[in-house]
Amino acid sequence: MTSAPFSILSFLLLMPATITSRTIHIGLAGLGNVGAGVYKNLDANRDLIVQRTGADIRVKRVIVRDISRARDVEVPPDMVSSRWQDLIDDAEIEVIVELIGGTTTAYDLVCAALRAKKTVVTGNKALLAERGQELFALAEKCGVPIYFEAAVAGGIPIIQVLQEGLVGNRILSIHGIINGTCNYILTRMSQAGLSYADALREAQEKGYAEADPTLDVSGWDAAHKAIILASLSYGFWIPQECVHVEGVDKIDIADFKFAKRLGYTIKLLSVIRADEKGLVEVRTQPTLVPLSHVLASVSGSFNAVLVNGDIVGESLFYGRGAGQDPTSSSVISDLCEAAATLVYGARHSGFVPHGLYGKSKPVDDTVSHYYLRLTVADEPGVLARVATELGRRSIGISSMIQPEDLEDTSGQTSLVLMLHDAKLGDVKGALDAIRALDCVRGEPSWMRVETLQGS
Amino acid sequence: MTSAPFSILSFLLLMPATITSRTIHIGLAGLGNVGAGVYKNLDANRDLIVQRTGADIRVKRVIVRDISRARDVEVPPDMVSSRWQDLIDDAEIEVIVELIGGTTTAYDLVCAALRAKKTVVTGNKALLAERGQELFALAEKCGVPIYFEAAVAGGIPIIQVLQEGLVGNRILSIHGIINGTCNYILTRMSQAGLSYADALREAQEKGYAEADPTLDVSGWDAAHKAIILASLSYGFWIPQECVHVEGVDKIDIADFKFAKRLGYTIKLLSVIRADEKGLVEVRTQPTLVPLSHVLASVSGSFNAVLVNGDIVGESLFYGRGAGQDPTSSSVISDLCEAAATLVYGARHSGFVPHGLYGKSKPVDDTVSHYYLRLTVADEPGVLARVATELGRRSIGISSMIQPEDLEDTSGQTSLVLMLHDAKLGDVKGALDAIRALDCVRGEPSWMRVETLQGS
Repeated sequence: MTSAPFSILSFLLLMPATITSRTIHIGLAGLGNVGAGVYKNLDANRDLIVQRTGADIRVKRVIVRDISRARDVEVPPDMVSSRWQDLIDDAEIEVIVELIGGTTTAYDLVCAALRAKKTVVTGNKALLAERGQELFALAEKCGVPIYFEAAVAGGIPIIQVLQEGLVGNRILSIHGIINGTCNYILTRMSQAGLSYADALREAQEKGYAEADPTLDVSGWDAAHKAIILASLSYGFWIPQECVHVEGVDKIDIADFKFAKRLGYTIKLLSVIRADEKGLVEVRTQPTLVPLSHVLASVSGSFNAVLVNGDIVGESLFYGRGAGQDPTSSSVISDLCEAAATLVYGARHSGFVPHGLYGKSKPVDDTVSHYYLRLTVADEPGVLARVATELGRRSIGISSMIQPEDLEDTSGQTSLVLMLHDAKLGDVKGALDAIRALDCVRGEPSWMRVETLQGS
Repeated sequence: MTSAPFSILSFLLLMPATITSRTIHIGLAGLGNVGAGVYKNLDANRDLIVQRTGADIRVKRVIVRDISRARDVEVPPDMVSSRWQDLIDDAEIEVIVELIGGTTTAYDLVCAALRAKKTVVTGNKALLAERGQELFALAEKCGVPIYFEAAVAGGIPIIQVLQEGLVGNRILSIHGIINGTCNYILTRMSQAGLSYADALREAQEKGYAEADPTLDVSGWDAAHKAIILASLSYGFWIPQECVHVEGVDKIDIADFKFAKRLGYTIKLLSVIRADEKGLVEVRTQPTLVPLSHVLASVSGSFNAVLVNGDIVGESLFYGRGAGQDPTSSSVISDLCEAAATLVYGARHSGFVPHGLYGKSKPVDDTVSHYYLRLTVADEPGVLARVATELGRRSIGISSMIQPEDLEDTSGQTSLVLMLHDAKLGDVKGALDAIRALDCVRGEPSWMRVETLQGS
């Protein structure tokens, strides 16, 4: 591969035609919710990842605390052990994914990985918020990167946005809803009138809260994420003692009622901002947010991060903030960057032709709901004639309005129809026929209707 | 620099302490709205960009069509010429930024740049949508990258999100509002009841629409962006003839009225999605969108892109879709990646300590509005006593409610106050004093209020 007759970049750009991907062996520490998601989704989208990165990312070894426990995914038993040093000792493993959580064993594992010159991918916000300064210093010393997209806001690529997408901006402020557990609890208190205790119980039953929910409901999980976002934005490590943290466990349902009367709802909001002197405040606490603001409508386990950059202005990033699949999407993104960097020295940027899972659909075959407004003669039988032309092409009418207040006295009126799913080609055919009806005046007005179902 | 006693990556990680940035000379083609923004903002945030990338990105030469025209920014006259070949001929220039638009001269310039092994950064969506396949093939052949974040959705880093952040996902669908001009016009028609002609005139007066608005209002600008997003997502070039495009110029104000009555508004929506057979439809057309959906609330010149990935689920990216500063933020992001790749072979990913523009603020000095709910004795003079304690610490009351319907018969009642901006330390002091009042029962409930002003 290194003897290919073109530069690394040119190779990358030619990848799809000439692909002979190099295998990158990874060691996975932790096979809980997110770990199982990484294992499962790396495999499910392997073909795509190979095309897009030029690397075949293979889990070689998995370590878990309790080997005997049942798992969400089937992993060959000879790949699994309970000794994290096994990942370090395996010389073939180039990347270690730390998903065991906590700040003790995880810290030892990450330090050992860096010293062994293995790239680290982690989703551990507590570890980075508490010991990030030491760990990044060690990474510097060892010349090995740490990737941590999954540490903040689940599937939302907010770390990359701050590091790269908005790299030219001074960050003026960040407002984030970055703990899905608390947002689920507050949403249920607000919308269903549940007490805190009942909302927490429901969150636990649905898997949105842990058996011991302390780290989440105390506000500290969100605060750890805020520390990471603030440190990235302002270029110095925010000391934990400078962060104001309050949990959601003391909020009374009465506060939601009063807040609503005042035009607000209550969110666990993390706020990062600098004043005009450059003094940076970092806080995570229950906060009254105006009902009219987009952050007020971020519901359930969703997360949102509102970033204000001095050049770009306000930007909002919204998505699932927790859960097996969304968080594993971020871990896999980091793995792809780690793998491409190991194989090619850089990540591909450009257009990667692969055509793996799609080809173009003829326009006339596309299916949609439609809106149709006609100006018609104000006489009996018009609807029947229009409906007949639609029915001939199997296009159903889902609703109809013929508004009296818009009728005029010129013997014509409006007829507005909402049409069921129809092929564009059929709609065009029906329109030609309808246009030709003598009861139809002028040009029909018609538009697609986006139901946004299933998207 | 290449003789430094550590690897490239370790150098990158050590950058801030040892920074001796290399200068990357760029050639800027076009000094219109976005070009002037790039020139201005590269200079304004130079210190930050040097720290974050390890490269000092300098505009060495600018080409414009008409040298005599007045500009938004002052560029030394000896840097400016009208012959684009000057950028190619200058051996020191390593990156060419193409912001002249159109598909003829821009095409010649990009081809010449690639052949001269110069990295290309472009914001030209028409060029990529129409001739992307040829250009990326030439980039492959020449082994030089093309970056194009600014081509879609202004300041929103949606290209990077698709290429990197969601790299492990098969994209199921994308729904985008990606033309600020049309969205401004439709927003004004919907909210102010303007006719299409009046809304267009207003958009032109405010600088949201060009003197010749055809490319925008025909839907083709958004369609070009949709072609780029679809091609990136599905890994093959979408032929223009397979894209269904309609403009906003035929929408009647009556349609807004009917749409609203049916629970919808009208947006120029670009839709990309694959059906179960992998057939991909790409369309840009005025579309009825449910009022309850977040896309219905994207107003004015803002853009939003809703991406549904098979692993990550639904994610939304929202921000300013056009304009000098937001679009230049994306060009600068591309320039940073181009520069870091030229200098170090890869972009830095990790934590870059610089402390250039911030330090921690003591928690008690943070200023905010507050909400305060007290349970108090139902007797005269209570409000005066509470207000006195607040006033002592210069904390003003902005509103008060004492709801009758929540009073009980036990001789106590609720008192809810909204407080003006106050330091947290002062609020804590006031709370201690209020807690000690004999008319106050139980523990006060208090929360920050986020006005989201100026953010």
